[in-house]
Amino acid sequence: MARRIPRGQDTRERILESALRLFASRGYAAVSVEEIAAAAGVTKGAFYHWFADKDDLGRDLQHTLYERLTVASRQAFRTGSDTVENMLRAFDAYLGLLDDLGEARFFLRDAWVIPELDEAGRRDHEDAVASMRDVVAEAVANGEIVALDPEALARVLMGVFAEATLHVLRTGRRDGAERVVHHLIGSLRARVPDGAREPGRAATTRKRGTAP
Amino acid sequence: MARRIPRGQDTRERILESALRLFASRGYAAVSVEEIAAAAGVTKGAFYHWFADKDDLGRDLQHTLYERLTVASRQAFRTGSDTVENMLRAFDAYLGLLDDLGEARFFLRDAWVIPELDEAGRRDHEDAVASMRDVVAEAVANGEIVALDPEALARVLMGVFAEATLHVLRTGRRDGAERVVHHLIGSLRARVPDGAREPGRAATTRKRGTAP
Repeated sequence: MARRIPRGQDTRERILESALRLFASRGYAAVSVEEIAAAAGVTKGAFYHWFADKDDLGRDLQHTLYERLTVASRQAFRTGSDTVENMLRAFDAYLGLLDDLGEARFFLRDAWVIPELDEAGRRDHEDAVASMRDVVAEAVANGEIVALDPEALARVLMGVFAEATLHVLRTGRRDGAERVVHHLIGSLRARVPDGAREPGRAATTRKRGTAP
Repeated sequence: MARRIPRGQDTRERILESALRLFASRGYAAVSVEEIAAAAGVTKGAFYHWFADKDDLGRDLQHTLYERLTVASRQAFRTGSDTVENMLRAFDAYLGLLDDLGEARFFLRDAWVIPELDEAGRRDHEDAVASMRDVVAEAVANGEIVALDPEALARVLMGVFAEATLHVLRTGRRDGAERVVHHLIGSLRARVPDGAREPGRAATTRKRGTAP
């Protein structure tokens, strides 16, 4: 892993920013350590003080991006809101952050298909699946969403989010993918009339036009 | 690409079968050309007559599996059935074929994360997305499914299928993932009462318990 020593953080940050800019514009594979060091205005020695190699730096960037996306999604959860609303809000926050990432989002798109980064990315992915499974399991137990296997649903929803995100990154447009996600997540809502819970059957309504 | 000459097909098939068995039991990366040749009872020269290298053989196996899955899914489509029913049938056929593949399905699970096979796999994936998009676009135009962007929906549905398939391969159980897929695909059905089509609004009903 990259060293995380406070001293020299400016240099480290400058290397990361330069690398991200180069990766975003030319693709991860095409960029060398020499070019990153030159763009950051540091020596190769300074680069290797902070990172073992390019993949070490790449994993660092990728993990930081995942963390920002996870934090943005978690912050969107509101106590007192129902789970479906929270999931929709989390997804919107996630897509919103992609916009804020600027060029960095092109690295994120690449990261999913860079073999050298794939293993670390899969660990982050499994963490995200586990969080999602807990949210889903609680909502199923509460009767908020339809009774489906939490682990299977969490994995499938992660697939939904990932493909929708890639579609947004590829096309540069949010609306189509966002409506698809809102529709599918909305379909999970198990709503029963107040005071009229009917065992074994859940009427499902879908909010239309909730996408911004 | 692997040579596809009729002469000596038996040898070629024997090599492919031996390789698949070895990949399935020990993982793609751990198996050498020497071992494949030995298991097939052929010389290394015979192996290289048919395949440029291990990855060439791996791509061949992967593409053949994808084709079988695609054919199984397509054959499940029935003229006269509605699109949602056809999609559910296609997905069930796909999962059913996974059972029939026996050990080969472990290679399929690996193939998604083998960098050397990833590029060829992505081409197959894009072909599958294009087919799905055409089906979705027609069903949206017909008013059979809710009005969503066909390209975005096709990509997201492929993500749903891929994650559901991986979940089945990981856990060895079909039912949880199958119910999730049936629920989500079922939610796409735009059903309007016969003779009472109301423009701009589509009531959605969901068949419950259609999973076998």
